[in-house]
Amino acid sequence: MHGYQTGRLDLPFTGICTFARAPHVADWAALDCDVAVLGAPFDAGTQWRAGARFGPRGVREASTLFSFGHAGAYDHEDDVTYLDGVRIADMGDADIVHTDTLQSHANIRAGVAAALAAGALPVTIGGDHSTNIPCIEAYEDHAPFHLLQIDAHLDFVDERHGVTRGHGNPMRRAAEKPWVSGLTQVGIRNVSSTAREGYEDARARGSDILSVRQMRALGALATAARLPQGAPVYITIDIDAFCPSIAPGTGTPSHGGFLYYEVLELLQAVAKAHPVIGIDLVEVAPDYDPTGSTSILAAQLLMNLLGFVFHARASVPPAA
Amino acid sequence: MHGYQTGRLDLPFTGICTFARAPHVADWAALDCDVAVLGAPFDAGTQWRAGARFGPRGVREASTLFSFGHAGAYDHEDDVTYLDGVRIADMGDADIVHTDTLQSHANIRAGVAAALAAGALPVTIGGDHSTNIPCIEAYEDHAPFHLLQIDAHLDFVDERHGVTRGHGNPMRRAAEKPWVSGLTQVGIRNVSSTAREGYEDARARGSDILSVRQMRALGALATAARLPQGAPVYITIDIDAFCPSIAPGTGTPSHGGFLYYEVLELLQAVAKAHPVIGIDLVEVAPDYDPTGSTSILAAQLLMNLLGFVFHARASVPPAA
Amino acid sequence: MHGYQTGRLDLPFTGICTFARAPHVADWAALDCDVAVLGAPFDAGTQWRAGARFGPRGVREASTLFSFGHAGAYDHEDDVTYLDGVRIADMGDADIVHTDTLQSHANIRAGVAAALAAGALPVTIGGDHSTNIPCIEAYEDHAPFHLLQIDAHLDFVDERHGVTRGHGNPMRRAAEKPWVSGLTQVGIRNVSSTAREGYEDARARGSDILSVRQMRALGALATAARLPQGAPVYITIDIDAFCPSIAPGTGTPSHGGFLYYEVLELLQAVAKAHPVIGIDLVEVAPDYDPTGSTSILAAQLLMNLLGFVFHARASVPPAA
Amino acid sequence: MHGYQTGRLDLPFTGICTFARAPHVADWAALDCDVAVLGAPFDAGTQWRAGARFGPRGVREASTLFSFGHAGAYDHEDDVTYLDGVRIADMGDADIVHTDTLQSHANIRAGVAAALAAGALPVTIGGDHSTNIPCIEAYEDHAPFHLLQIDAHLDFVDERHGVTRGHGNPMRRAAEKPWVSGLTQVGIRNVSSTAREGYEDARARGSDILSVRQMRALGALATAARLPQGAPVYITIDIDAFCPSIAPGTGTPSHGGFLYYEVLELLQAVAKAHPVIGIDLVEVAPDYDPTGSTSILAAQLLMNLLGFVFHARASVPPAA
Amino acid sequence: MHGYQTGRLDLPFTGICTFARAPHVADWAALDCDVAVLGAPFDAGTQWRAGARFGPRGVREASTLFSFGHAGAYDHEDDVTYLDGVRIADMGDADIVHTDTLQSHANIRAGVAAALAAGALPVTIGGDHSTNIPCIEAYEDHAPFHLLQIDAHLDFVDERHGVTRGHGNPMRRAAEKPWVSGLTQVGIRNVSSTAREGYEDARARGSDILSVRQMRALGALATAARLPQGAPVYITIDIDAFCPSIAPGTGTPSHGGFLYYEVLELLQAVAKAHPVIGIDLVEVAPDYDPTGSTSILAAQLLMNLLGFVFHARASVPPAA
Amino acid sequence: MHGYQTGRLDLPFTGICTFARAPHVADWAALDCDVAVLGAPFDAGTQWRAGARFGPRGVREASTLFSFGHAGAYDHEDDVTYLDGVRIADMGDADIVHTDTLQSHANIRAGVAAALAAGALPVTIGGDHSTNIPCIEAYEDHAPFHLLQIDAHLDFVDERHGVTRGHGNPMRRAAEKPWVSGLTQVGIRNVSSTAREGYEDARARGSDILSVRQMRALGALATAARLPQGAPVYITIDIDAFCPSIAPGTGTPSHGGFLYYEVLELLQAVAKAHPVIGIDLVEVAPDYDPTGSTSILAAQLLMNLLGFVFHARASVPPAA
Repeated sequence: MHGYQTGRLDLPFTGICTFARAPHVADWAALDCDVAVLGAPFDAGTQWRAGARFGPRGVREASTLFSFGHAGAYDHEDDVTYLDGVRIADMGDADIVHTDTLQSHANIRAGVAAALAAGALPVTIGGDHSTNIPCIEAYEDHAPFHLLQIDAHLDFVDERHGVTRGHGNPMRRAAEKPWVSGLTQVGIRNVSSTAREGYEDARARGSDILSVRQMRALGALATAARLPQGAPVYITIDIDAFCPSIAPGTGTPSHGGFLYYEVLELLQAVAKAHPVIGIDLVEVAPDYDPTGSTSILAAQLLMNLLGFVFHARASVPPAA
Repeated sequence: MHGYQTGRLDLPFTGICTFARAPHVADWAALDCDVAVLGAPFDAGTQWRAGARFGPRGVREASTLFSFGHAGAYDHEDDVTYLDGVRIADMGDADIVHTDTLQSHANIRAGVAAALAAGALPVTIGGDHSTNIPCIEAYEDHAPFHLLQIDAHLDFVDERHGVTRGHGNPMRRAAEKPWVSGLTQVGIRNVSSTAREGYEDARARGSDILSVRQMRALGALATAARLPQGAPVYITIDIDAFCPSIAPGTGTPSHGGFLYYEVLELLQAVAKAHPVIGIDLVEVAPDYDPTGSTSILAAQLLMNLLGFVFHARASVPPAA
Repeated sequence: MHGYQTGRLDLPFTGICTFARAPHVADWAALDCDVAVLGAPFDAGTQWRAGARFGPRGVREASTLFSFGHAGAYDHEDDVTYLDGVRIADMGDADIVHTDTLQSHANIRAGVAAALAAGALPVTIGGDHSTNIPCIEAYEDHAPFHLLQIDAHLDFVDERHGVTRGHGNPMRRAAEKPWVSGLTQVGIRNVSSTAREGYEDARARGSDILSVRQMRALGALATAARLPQGAPVYITIDIDAFCPSIAPGTGTPSHGGFLYYEVLELLQAVAKAHPVIGIDLVEVAPDYDPTGSTSILAAQLLMNLLGFVFHARASVPPAA
Repeated sequence: MHGYQTGRLDLPFTGICTFARAPHVADWAALDCDVAVLGAPFDAGTQWRAGARFGPRGVREASTLFSFGHAGAYDHEDDVTYLDGVRIADMGDADIVHTDTLQSHANIRAGVAAALAAGALPVTIGGDHSTNIPCIEAYEDHAPFHLLQIDAHLDFVDERHGVTRGHGNPMRRAAEKPWVSGLTQVGIRNVSSTAREGYEDARARGSDILSVRQMRALGALATAARLPQGAPVYITIDIDAFCPSIAPGTGTPSHGGFLYYEVLELLQAVAKAHPVIGIDLVEVAPDYDPTGSTSILAAQLLMNLLGFVFHARASVPPAA
Repeated sequence: MHGYQTGRLDLPFTGICTFARAPHVADWAALDCDVAVLGAPFDAGTQWRAGARFGPRGVREASTLFSFGHAGAYDHEDDVTYLDGVRIADMGDADIVHTDTLQSHANIRAGVAAALAAGALPVTIGGDHSTNIPCIEAYEDHAPFHLLQIDAHLDFVDERHGVTRGHGNPMRRAAEKPWVSGLTQVGIRNVSSTAREGYEDARARGSDILSVRQMRALGALATAARLPQGAPVYITIDIDAFCPSIAPGTGTPSHGGFLYYEVLELLQAVAKAHPVIGIDLVEVAPDYDPTGSTSILAAQLLMNLLGFVFHARASVPPAA
Repeated sequence: MHGYQTGRLDLPFTGICTFARAPHVADWAALDCDVAVLGAPFDAGTQWRAGARFGPRGVREASTLFSFGHAGAYDHEDDVTYLDGVRIADMGDADIVHTDTLQSHANIRAGVAAALAAGALPVTIGGDHSTNIPCIEAYEDHAPFHLLQIDAHLDFVDERHGVTRGHGNPMRRAAEKPWVSGLTQVGIRNVSSTAREGYEDARARGSDILSVRQMRALGALATAARLPQGAPVYITIDIDAFCPSIAPGTGTPSHGGFLYYEVLELLQAVAKAHPVIGIDLVEVAPDYDPTGSTSILAAQLLMNLLGFVFHARASVPPAA
């Protein structure tokens, strides 16, 4: 039954902004859901513009645009009603302690761990890309998985001036983990905090690095096929992977990025062929986009990705 | 005990945005609180810029800036800790039906009525000023009260081209109600949809109309003293009563408005001398103020007004 | 002779903003022109962001950018000077009555009817997409025509909570009309207020529904060829058919939309093969796009479409 | 009769934007009105931010907010209905020739001269303050008058690097004219392009220079009383005379400026005691104020000033 | 000689943006100047909106508006030409290490220490208010001084969740230093991260706390007279001391703040009666103010304060 | 050695904004570098929106995003480290004299001439496109070269109302010069100030005119191959050649423009096959793009183009 048949129309511009208008579950021990959405509003890891601390709020508000109260989301191209019956919960935000990177990261890790403990799919909304570090750490006792990064920047700096947990470091941190079996890094272009040495380090550790043009030349399906067959996959999406034309609200925009369907089709292909065991979407800085398009992109992408994941799960149970 | 002593720091930039981070009570029959905050995101009554439909969201988000988790709000000028122990609930928004003014207004009325039924002080966040019409209607079976309007515009149009429930009509509608014993209209200035006839009508019905300069000349205390002594008061605040310098995010800004302390001191004086039995704050259109100042003003004002009301109630029980 | 040869340079940043700097004809009974442009600033039919009430002003102002005073508009790709000798009139806006959807729609209908009565091509600038409802109704006594919708959303909701004339209903309303012989709906994607039932209803009534990717795969010419051969066509363009990268200034942006030439080439093909008997362009909400690009897109598109229509008319007289 | 009694409601958000919705009279030889409003969209005289070229458009659009269709503008403080019967015409804009300061200025002068020839009160909307130079020149064969400048900057640079007609020069240019009998310069503060020598030059030529604090200490009436008794007055208002809190949309904001009533009361006092023979309002750069407050201020001020002028004329005929 | 007499006009919109167009001295050991301006772009200490990291850039760019190339800044109210002959140097920014509060603060301290070692007046542009902590620490071996804070917030939190160097802690940190002889805290209002205990702690340590209304009632001179007579003074200005009407571009705006002349007159009085031995101005977050007014305020204030300080020094040599 | 290995991290948000953080060389006689970057902040040649005067500041600030302190810029697609060892100097801005087009242009010419005299590659950042006129004039005594224009508009107006040096004239001016051997004009689309006569004139003078779709059909390599083989090339890039989706911050946006890689690949091909002897990039108006994307595009493009030019020079010495 559609939500609006129960008495309220609940138009998108009304109501408290949780993700997809899902119930807010402040008591993480009581989580009972398929998807657990956690905000990670930490942006002290940024090297140019901050503002990603308001990413969770922005994405939650934008998600209401896709929440008309239908029972599931009908896609006429696929002729599928996605998300029907999928139970989403909004965990609220991890507690952030200003000036204290380690404690803030620890709190994010605890949130993801709670989602995992509840058997839910963790979906973390950053925050800057350093928030991926505790997300990955939360899988410490879990089965190995492949990491798919969709991003403009390689984020493979080991250490510089003592910084190891900034937003230029997460993929290097991930590559060190025994439970991360490998990386595919897609969308990488232009100069960033990772220098030539970082690329060499990444390649030495087995990363498959693809630029936007390289993936475009391959196509979404062939790109997806480069991931290790059947491996569980964690997906980290830096919104700056996208072209600034549709994602200007981010800390370090990089021209020449992806358009919407390029990433959507990659995600659909990956979700079809792999168990997806975790997701984060980072670097949405809403205050740099007065039009709201960036937050809408993030919300639209997450809603569709979740649809793909659970549509796939209907036939193929996840490995995690 | 301060909230941050219970384990989370809960900085203002984190968390789900309810008003003052109060619990969200979607089941209005279950309201058990001192203050019940209702969003009324209806703006089809506007005659220039719309956008007040996002007023509830904007004010809720801004209210988090004043929510550091202290037990109450300490004011060093008054040497008082306000709001300690006052229980606020966020009712979410009244259901709005686009294109249907009557149904949308009926839903707002139902929300205010529910708050009243629960014995809570209703605080409605608009929406345009037409949302005041159902707010007042919700008091139909209640004891008479005086209406204090703080506004740039008289809003006293009876009917024009069939319109009786637009944002130029609410004070005329209120004046018709037997349970509204009188009006004080403060801040009125410049041309608006009310023509000379409307002023004459208002005066004939007993309205006390004061411009910004007239109230400024009187002072806050003398202005407050013009209200009928001891009468219960409903307060309706149109944010455009304020100078556009601090409230540009509104539909019909009017230069020459109030500054912050002018209104605050009037509200403090009224709250001290009268039972306040209802509040609405309308016409915040956040998207017209990229700085966020207007929403912050609305939130700061409501938090302080609630503090004054419940500080007064500690000695003088309300009449309603 | 170019306009600037008559004594004034009339740079685009100067002058009163009528559409294309055409004469303003306030007396609709006196219309004597080839194209009659009507503003329909009604946005109470929206379900997320309002603001389309300022669409007519935004598009008019942007149209001055394309008004250098040349005698016609030379296109070096086509080697054609378009619009030379075409007489445009700006009717101003239909009268809007706030809170009253039916009366506002009636006034829009009257405007379009006046343009038709004058033998001019009606071009209506919204306002939200509900303004298309009275536009179509104005053709009540006219010969049947095919309706081409370019839009992100199907807008095929029949009724919900009593709403039948909101911006989610227009194509359903059109499909009911005996004088609308069929619909082609292009650009449709993602979740919106139309649920699965709406799609089934539309298909049952003969709609040809194409997503962006489906039209992209076909190409503009093959898409145009799907329209019934030679049929008169009314074109309704919702600016959110376009990618938010070039049209963020709209109420409900949807990622994955069309780029400029995709729509332009479809319009050129349709204008070449069909009599175009009416146009509306809706949902431009300028205040959500501080760069002005959305309004510029709308103006640029309309100017080019009018060029195509009247270039075609030089050889094929319209059916209407 | 109110305009809305003639059939249309004509809400402020509808319609073609002429000043105060007055008729557009493109043929300046046919002017027949009391007030002739001319746009002077020239901003190549600026030394920091440009954008005042869009001043006329911004002020025209904002003026619609004060155009509800009443017969005159009722002010409840003064208990006067202003502007009833005053005939305003919008002349459109003077032709501007980019890169050519002299020709652009000549065209502005021609417009003001046409207004004067028609016996109308010229009201010029800039453009930067250099547009005042041709305005003053247009009075060449007229009776001498006093010049009242309301501005943050003295604008008394004689010549620097060959520049004599930039926005730092107009008061020096005016002081040279035999038909300008003297200057009162109010609101002057902070560093600007005029150096100490300019102040000495101005004082030597008889200028009465008052800062914001100096006028504030005097009060509006005493300040007005410093103008030569009964002399005809031309008023030039640079919007940056105002505090950036209400007028941020200008090229060179200067903190510490006037608030609304301070200037309004000065203008009311001057209009009561002197024939006002010309007005310009300059330096509104709407694109630097996304809230629209600056344009609204300019429109509100002009509407009120015109009210004062014609209310005074009812008893005292103008000298010009 | 004026700068523009040496061959270039150097309009404010041209040129590399150093503070007041002073020379950039990257080699801090080579400083030879009266005033040394240091940027401290650290904002990880914020509890709501970040963005103060762009404060130094914003203030530098805005300072060009006051840099017309005059030899000194003539003030017609005081009839003084300020800053003539005062040598300013721009040190660039302290090095910031993201995620590392201690190292970033150490680098700021080193910059201030270098300025002091060169015998220059250190002027630090934040960054958030936590950057005041290393500024004060840099005076460790210097003579005691009084600290004048102009701010909306008390910033007197000792420790919470381990945070001791966030933007809510600096005045508590300062009060602990033996070389800080006392504090005057002006402008304090509304709820912030400091709870009642913080106020009690501050008062116990001898702080003189004044709200905006309290200082307004006293006047600037009486307020200045409350500082210990003749004591050297360090001035820390949080831009949120000002009303959001003129300073919306800041992290935590608080309504009811100071207007321009209120603070200017306090600073003038203090500079006249005390040696000023250091200045910081913090919390300008330019991206939250698209009008630029906040940065202009900061630049205008600093330029005037420096004028006052060195005008006073001409007769009274500083103590430091 | 990377810059961050020398002691400072120098994050992109820190430091004085020169282009690419290159040294500022105010004494043009002392230039000793490979690339000399000159700002030309002149925008009085514009016909719609001004604001390009802030182009140099915007591009300089954006260039810091690409300045992480690496020794050169590593591109993983090309596996090349560009710009390693290339010495860039920032000349600051040419002196602009408001109201005086000829003098402003003369000053720009002097700057480019100084760069040429120093043997450096001149890179001029506009300003509007009229600033290209003095750039080309500075090559008066140099060997002939081909001019590659990347632009939405032909800019081939000879004269209109006396204007010969506005932003619609530069290509016509260039075509007259004996030292300009020919023009390739790429990206030209839609109506602009050039009428049909201008196109005919351009073709008659040998211009090769290509629209976006025409170049898109050809591809970057085939387009580059249309330039005269081996000829030295001067490249002028109007940012409005790009799609408004990535370059909204410009005076006269035109939909249907280039995406990032389309232009990048053309530039790479041209730089590989031709000596590049001069570059200008014009019409960036940062204040029309609150997201900053346009300035970032300009900076990213220039940094890459310079990389290509000097990578090519390593094997092929330039002709100039």
